[in-house]
Amino acid sequence: MPNPTAAILIIGDEILTGRTREGNAHHLAGVLVQHGIDLRQIRVISDDAPTIIAAVRELAGAHDHLFTSGGIGPTHDDITADAVAEAFGRHIGVREDARAILAAHYAARGVEFTEARLRMARIPDGAALIDNPVSGAPGFSVENCHVMAGVPNIFQAMVAGLVPRLAGGKPLISRNWQLMVAEAAIADELRQLAADHPEVSFGSYPFVTDGRYGTNLVARATDEAALAAAYTALQAMFPEGQ
Amino acid sequence: MPNPTAAILIIGDEILTGRTREGNAHHLAGVLVQHGIDLRQIRVISDDAPTIIAAVRELAGAHDHLFTSGGIGPTHDDITADAVAEAFGRHIGVREDARAILAAHYAARGVEFTEARLRMARIPDGAALIDNPVSGAPGFSVENCHVMAGVPNIFQAMVAGLVPRLAGGKPLISRNWQLMVAEAAIADELRQLAADHPEVSFGSYPFVTDGRYGTNLVARATDEAALAAAYTALQAMFPEGQ
Repeated sequence: MPNPTAAILIIGDEILTGRTREGNAHHLAGVLVQHGIDLRQIRVISDDAPTIIAAVRELAGAHDHLFTSGGIGPTHDDITADAVAEAFGRHIGVREDARAILAAHYAARGVEFTEARLRMARIPDGAALIDNPVSGAPGFSVENCHVMAGVPNIFQAMVAGLVPRLAGGKPLISRNWQLMVAEAAIADELRQLAADHPEVSFGSYPFVTDGRYGTNLVARATDEAALAAAYTALQAMFPEGQ
Repeated sequence: MPNPTAAILIIGDEILTGRTREGNAHHLAGVLVQHGIDLRQIRVISDDAPTIIAAVRELAGAHDHLFTSGGIGPTHDDITADAVAEAFGRHIGVREDARAILAAHYAARGVEFTEARLRMARIPDGAALIDNPVSGAPGFSVENCHVMAGVPNIFQAMVAGLVPRLAGGKPLISRNWQLMVAEAAIADELRQLAADHPEVSFGSYPFVTDGRYGTNLVARATDEAALAAAYTALQAMFPEGQ
């Protein structure tokens, strides 16, 4: 059976205007690989309701899972929860279970539970809550769409709670072999290697260090034996690597 | 006249498998803001020809410019140039101007001009070359699609040569105001401020430092006077900020 597929949708003008360098997608990509879920696309869009609704419908429809990051805080620019509800045709309002979680979180810390904070208890009907051990306000899953906060430590905590509960597949495993030669110098051999090992995906990533050209060759596969055979062949073909 | 719009397409399995944290989109986003081109979407996809072709057609069709990163090197996994040619229905082959650039680059460095390296002279018919002062092999523009290398220093050099030649618009300017309060504590005032200044976009970005909550408020606009008025109002509303 093939691995489940996924897309990540990052919502936030701060990425598109160059203010913030996005890191949540990179974190989640690493977690999904380990869990055997194949990440097919990462998309970054602005805080615009019609754009979010269209992207959620498209990406949730085309993948087994869609993970979103950003736009579920208490301020006027946090419109993700409402947009996701609309994308799935669900009603959204303050939900008692989410309200109770926030009330307990703030009571334990002596923080006032204001109207603005209550906004974070707005959850689409039928959604399952995603635990937020950092700041209380939960994320949620509607069907195959998992809605999480954009603040990196909260996003990571939500991912840690959510992903292990999802059905996974075969983890993609990879081996790296580094050569201090330009990529073009090994292109023909590498093409042959890729043809000889169709179950293994070979990537080549050039770099320059201290004015010298180098290439990282990465072999990836879900089958451990196929990867081991390809990696042995790779090492034999380029014995000067490490 | 509204600013031109753009999308960025990042092509590479190494991003989706979590191996590499992407930085080219962040770099280009900052350059586009300065040049008055509105970045609407960043998309990361795998090294798969049908996926690249479909994404290029969709994103080039929906924006004034599409910038791509990755997949134009000499190895078997470098399929971007061929996929872009197909997306625009153009023939692709080794082009004399690109071949001459590579020949001169390698001759000056005493590097052999191999068959693999010649692959990097494959350019779609009618495309304009994008200069690569780092390693010779050019990028290219087909219609509104600008195809660049994924290696960060080469990507940045290509961007530096290309973007100033594109028609720009009004740069998006922004001002930051940092408060050591939780985002929810100022949500109501901020909503009012946003309503009072419709030409200005307000973003609020929570953070935690040394266990204390803080919020960065960012006001963005293309109109300098509108931004100045909104920023003065923002400072007056939250005088404790900096």
